[in-house]
Amino acid sequence: MFNKLEEEMDKSIPDIVVGRLPMYLRSLQRMQQEGRLITSSQELGERLGISAAQIRKDLSLFGEFGKQGTGYNINYLIEQLAKILNIDREWPVVVVGAGDIGSAVARYRGFTNRGFRVVMLFDSNPSKINTQVGPFIVQDSTRMEGVIRQSDIKVAMIAVPAENAQEVANLLVQAGIKAILNYAPININVPPEIYVQDIDPSLHLQRMTYYLD
Amino acid sequence: MFNKLEEEMDKSIPDIVVGRLPMYLRSLQRMQQEGRLITSSQELGERLGISAAQIRKDLSLFGEFGKQGTGYNINYLIEQLAKILNIDREWPVVVVGAGDIGSAVARYRGFTNRGFRVVMLFDSNPSKINTQVGPFIVQDSTRMEGVIRQSDIKVAMIAVPAENAQEVANLLVQAGIKAILNYAPININVPPEIYVQDIDPSLHLQRMTYYLD
Repeated sequence: MFNKLEEEMDKSIPDIVVGRLPMYLRSLQRMQQEGRLITSSQELGERLGISAAQIRKDLSLFGEFGKQGTGYNINYLIEQLAKILNIDREWPVVVVGAGDIGSAVARYRGFTNRGFRVVMLFDSNPSKINTQVGPFIVQDSTRMEGVIRQSDIKVAMIAVPAENAQEVANLLVQAGIKAILNYAPININVPPEIYVQDIDPSLHLQRMTYYLD
Repeated sequence: MFNKLEEEMDKSIPDIVVGRLPMYLRSLQRMQQEGRLITSSQELGERLGISAAQIRKDLSLFGEFGKQGTGYNINYLIEQLAKILNIDREWPVVVVGAGDIGSAVARYRGFTNRGFRVVMLFDSNPSKINTQVGPFIVQDSTRMEGVIRQSDIKVAMIAVPAENAQEVANLLVQAGIKAILNYAPININVPPEIYVQDIDPSLHLQRMTYYLD
């Protein structure tokens, strides 16, 4: 592992492992809040319902973070995971759609210390434009492209109705957005270099009812 | 595939395949809304950014849904996927937490035709109990366990602060809940027979920033 080039390592990380890192980080931050200093793959595994071996294997893909028998230094591992996930900074985020979900997300305080800060909220509805939602004045989405490009924002959340989501996604991509969290219950098509994650509660619920009688 | 017992088939389905079925269903329902009757694994794949071969392979685990060259009958495939996902019925759902997110989810109209209907909204805050949120009167969460058990509800959403999420989860499990959609930004521990899916926008965002410069 020691002489492996960073670029080479990066290429070898399966996306499913990348998806687990934020869960590890969230659990470690929770331990930190509890005043804890050291943890183990066993304890982390028990909290997350993942095997200790899996956690050790995942982390070993990125380097050496703990020593056999002494466990992980929580603060250090948090710092390293934050670097790996590129959240050793704060990403400004735009929210498009000032309905129930968009407004709730714009006001959400859970992004603090997790790498993100909502900085703008847009809507196309004249009755919403220029109204106050939490700390934001809702901006006219027809001006979105220029404003986002000027501010060099890379991360956006789409919280508009399904019918409008693709059009909004196209505008965001043109404005230079690279990562989209999509709350609209529809698949959006974007160029391959743009990342999309879907939050559709029905999808998550259906994934569970499959297993229910 | 023909002589395989249903039970045997069920056991052999990887969870990652199960996770893709709701996406297939959502895309097919969209096509249905567009008035379409027939589709192909190619078209579905293009809409979803998944290979046609993957879709054919996934669906073949559950049976024969289309013929080589003639494609899939959209209505029939929707019906079959709904059966497989156990949403050929409507699951009543409770929401716990009447804050921004909980209220938005309780009012969300996107569950219609997707197998779910929010029927109750609970909160522990005296200033929220008995207030109106959309079509709901917020109920006192101290009475939750009895009410849920009596109504034989199996699906719940947790939208309370991280500090309260585990306690709420414990109560829900005691009340007979089998599937939990967790909006609280914390891992909740439940018995192995209970299903949990997390919706934490920070987790989803971090999964994307990993790939950004």
